[in-house]
Amino acid sequence: MTEAVSRPTLEAVAALAGVSRATVSRVVNGADGVREPLAERVRRAVAELGYVPNQAARSLVTKRHDAVAVVIAEPETRVFADPFFALQLRGISKELTAHDNQLVLLLTEGRDDHARVARYLAGGHVDGALVFSLHLDDPLPGLIQAAGVPTVFGGRPGWGAGADGSPRGNPGVVYVDCDNRGGARTAVRHLVELGRSRVAHITGPLDQTSAADRLDGYRDVMAGVPGGGDPRLVVESDFTPAGGEHAMRELLARRPDLDAVFAANDLTALGALRVLRESGRRVPEDVAVVGFDDMGPVAEQTDPPLTTVRQEIEEMGRLMARLLLRGGASGAGDGTGAGGPATRNGADGGVILPTTLIRRASA
Amino acid sequence: MTEAVSRPTLEAVAALAGVSRATVSRVVNGADGVREPLAERVRRAVAELGYVPNQAARSLVTKRHDAVAVVIAEPETRVFADPFFALQLRGISKELTAHDNQLVLLLTEGRDDHARVARYLAGGHVDGALVFSLHLDDPLPGLIQAAGVPTVFGGRPGWGAGADGSPRGNPGVVYVDCDNRGGARTAVRHLVELGRSRVAHITGPLDQTSAADRLDGYRDVMAGVPGGGDPRLVVESDFTPAGGEHAMRELLARRPDLDAVFAANDLTALGALRVLRESGRRVPEDVAVVGFDDMGPVAEQTDPPLTTVRQEIEEMGRLMARLLLRGGASGAGDGTGAGGPATRNGADGGVILPTTLIRRASA
Repeated sequence: MTEAVSRPTLEAVAALAGVSRATVSRVVNGADGVREPLAERVRRAVAELGYVPNQAARSLVTKRHDAVAVVIAEPETRVFADPFFALQLRGISKELTAHDNQLVLLLTEGRDDHARVARYLAGGHVDGALVFSLHLDDPLPGLIQAAGVPTVFGGRPGWGAGADGSPRGNPGVVYVDCDNRGGARTAVRHLVELGRSRVAHITGPLDQTSAADRLDGYRDVMAGVPGGGDPRLVVESDFTPAGGEHAMRELLARRPDLDAVFAANDLTALGALRVLRESGRRVPEDVAVVGFDDMGPVAEQTDPPLTTVRQEIEEMGRLMARLLLRGGASGAGDGTGAGGPATRNGADGGVILPTTLIRRASA
Repeated sequence: MTEAVSRPTLEAVAALAGVSRATVSRVVNGADGVREPLAERVRRAVAELGYVPNQAARSLVTKRHDAVAVVIAEPETRVFADPFFALQLRGISKELTAHDNQLVLLLTEGRDDHARVARYLAGGHVDGALVFSLHLDDPLPGLIQAAGVPTVFGGRPGWGAGADGSPRGNPGVVYVDCDNRGGARTAVRHLVELGRSRVAHITGPLDQTSAADRLDGYRDVMAGVPGGGDPRLVVESDFTPAGGEHAMRELLARRPDLDAVFAANDLTALGALRVLRESGRRVPEDVAVVGFDDMGPVAEQTDPPLTTVRQEIEEMGRLMARLLLRGGASGAGDGTGAGGPATRNGADGGVILPTTLIRRASA
C-alpha cells in the first residue's frame, strides 16, 4: 500500500474543506443530504488535492448498507458482564459513527447460534464484520469466511494456526491485537529486576490466544531465571476473580516460598491479592503482584493499587473499524491515523498495539 | 398461523362488551364519540381477553430475515453502563434465540444517528424492531413508524401523548412496561402506613414516562396525607447515585423534618442513603427509605439493605420479543406463557407487568 502514503487522504480533504469525513464521503459518492455550499467546498478541496478515493475504500463507501456487524462469539451474558467488550465496542461505535456507518451488534446465547449469525452475515445485511472469536475450536470464523464477508478480527485468531500456535496458518486474515507476549515479558522482567526469582503465573483460559501468548511471554523470561522452569509455578485459570483466588491457593500450597505473581489479567490479580492477604503475606514486601489490562478502575482500586500491563482496548476497537472501512489496509502509514510509532504490523495480517507497564504499589 | 386464529378477535371483544364492532374499533383507536361507561366496558373486555390490535405486526408471519432489531435510543456508553438494558437484553436474547431469530442490536452515539438507524430498519434487514425510546421529545419512534417496521416498545412511549401524558395519543402502539404508577403508590403507601407523613420524593428525569408515572403514583397517595402536597418535598433528579446525593442534600435543606424518602430508583436511593448517614440521620428510625427496581445486587448491598419496588426487567424483555414474534399478540391467555394473573393489558396497546414491594431494612 505504498500508494496510500503519497496519496491525499479523505482526512486531508475533510480538513481542507473544514467538514467531517462523513460529509466528504457523502459528497464523493453522490449521496444526498449535504447542503450545496458545503458540497461545493468539498468538491473544491477534492480538486485542489487531487483526491481519488482508493478502490477498496470506495467499494466500502458505495456499498449498499452503510452497516458493519460486530460479532462476539461469547454468550450475551458475558458480553455485558465483561468491561473488555464494552470498551472495544465504544471504540468501534465512535469510529463507525464518524463514518456514518451503523453498528449492528449480533448477540448469541451460545455456539448453537453461530450458524444463524453466519446466515445473517451472508444475507447481505452488512458490508463487513468485526469478529471477536476467542476460542481455538470456535467454528464461527470458518462459517464467516464461507459467507464471504470482509472481516477484521479482534485478537489473534487461534483457529487454523500451526501446532506451535503460529499465526502463519491464517495468511490474509486481518486482526488487531495487543502485544500479549511482549507485555507479559515486560511484566515478568519487571518482577525479576525487583530481585524476585520464584515468580508464579496464573494464566487465562489457554484455549484463548491472549492467554496462551501471555504464558509464552512469561516463559520467555523465566527460561533465563534459575529454577524458573518449575511447572508448579504455573496454574491455569479463567480470567475471573474467583478463579484467581482458587489459583492463588493452589500456588501457595505448591510453592509457599513464591515471591511474585504475574496474573494474566487484573480480575485474576484481584482474587490473588485477596488470598495473599488472607494468608498473611504482605504485598509487595513478601509477594509482588503484576496484572494485565489496566481496564477501568479495577487496578487503581485494589489493595494495594495494582502494577499492571496496560493495553489500549478502546483504541483497538477503533482501529478494527478503521481497518475494515479502509478495506483491510494495515495501520501504519496509510493515513488512517492508526499508525505512528506505536503501531507495528504482525508478520501475518495482524496489527499489534504495544502495551505499557503501569507501576503502582503492588510490584 | 393456527396461533393467530386462537388470538382474541375484535368480534370477541365486541361480544364480551356487548357492543358493536364499530364501537370496539372506535375505542381501541382512540376515536371520539363513545360514551364513557361504554368505553370503559370495552376497555375491560380488551384487557380481559388480551386483545391487542396491530395490523403491521401481522406481516411478521411471512418474515424473510429471522432477525429482530433492538434499538436503544441512548448513547452506546449508557447502554453498557446501565444494568437495566443488560437485563432486558438478556430476556430478549433468550426469547429470540428460542425462536431461532437473530438479535440485531443497533447502537448509536447520539440523536444525530437516529436517521441512520431508521434507514437501516427500513432497508429490509430485519422483520421487526424492539425499541427503547425513553425521552418525550425523541424523534426516533416517528422515524421508525415511517419505516413501516412492526415494532414493540419497551416502556410506555411518551411521544404523541396528550398534554396530560395520557397514552391514548398512540392508539395501536404496542409496548411493555411495568406498573410504574401502581408501584410508586405501593411504595408511598407503605411509608405512610409506617406512620410517616413527611414523605419526600426524589424523581427520575421527568422527560421519561417511567419517572413521570412514578411521580404521579407518589402524588396519588400524598394527596390524601395532610401537608402531603408540599412541593418542597419533591426534587427532580436523574436516576444516578450522584444525582440522589445532590437531591437528598436539597431536600434536607428544604425540609429538615422529613421522615421518609421514596427514591425513583435504587441508584438514587443509594446516593440518598449516603447523605442521610452523613447528616447523622438513622435509617429507618429517623428517615425511612424506599427505592424502585430491585435490580441485581444493588438493593441488597446498601446500608441498610433497601426496601424497594421490584420490577421484572428480564421478563419484560422476554415479553417484548414474544409479542413481536407473535405479531403483536398480547400476553394473557394466548399461549405465550406471558399471561397468567400477573399480567394485565393497558387500555391502550400496552402490556403492563405488576410490581412487588420487597421489604428489607430501610423502611
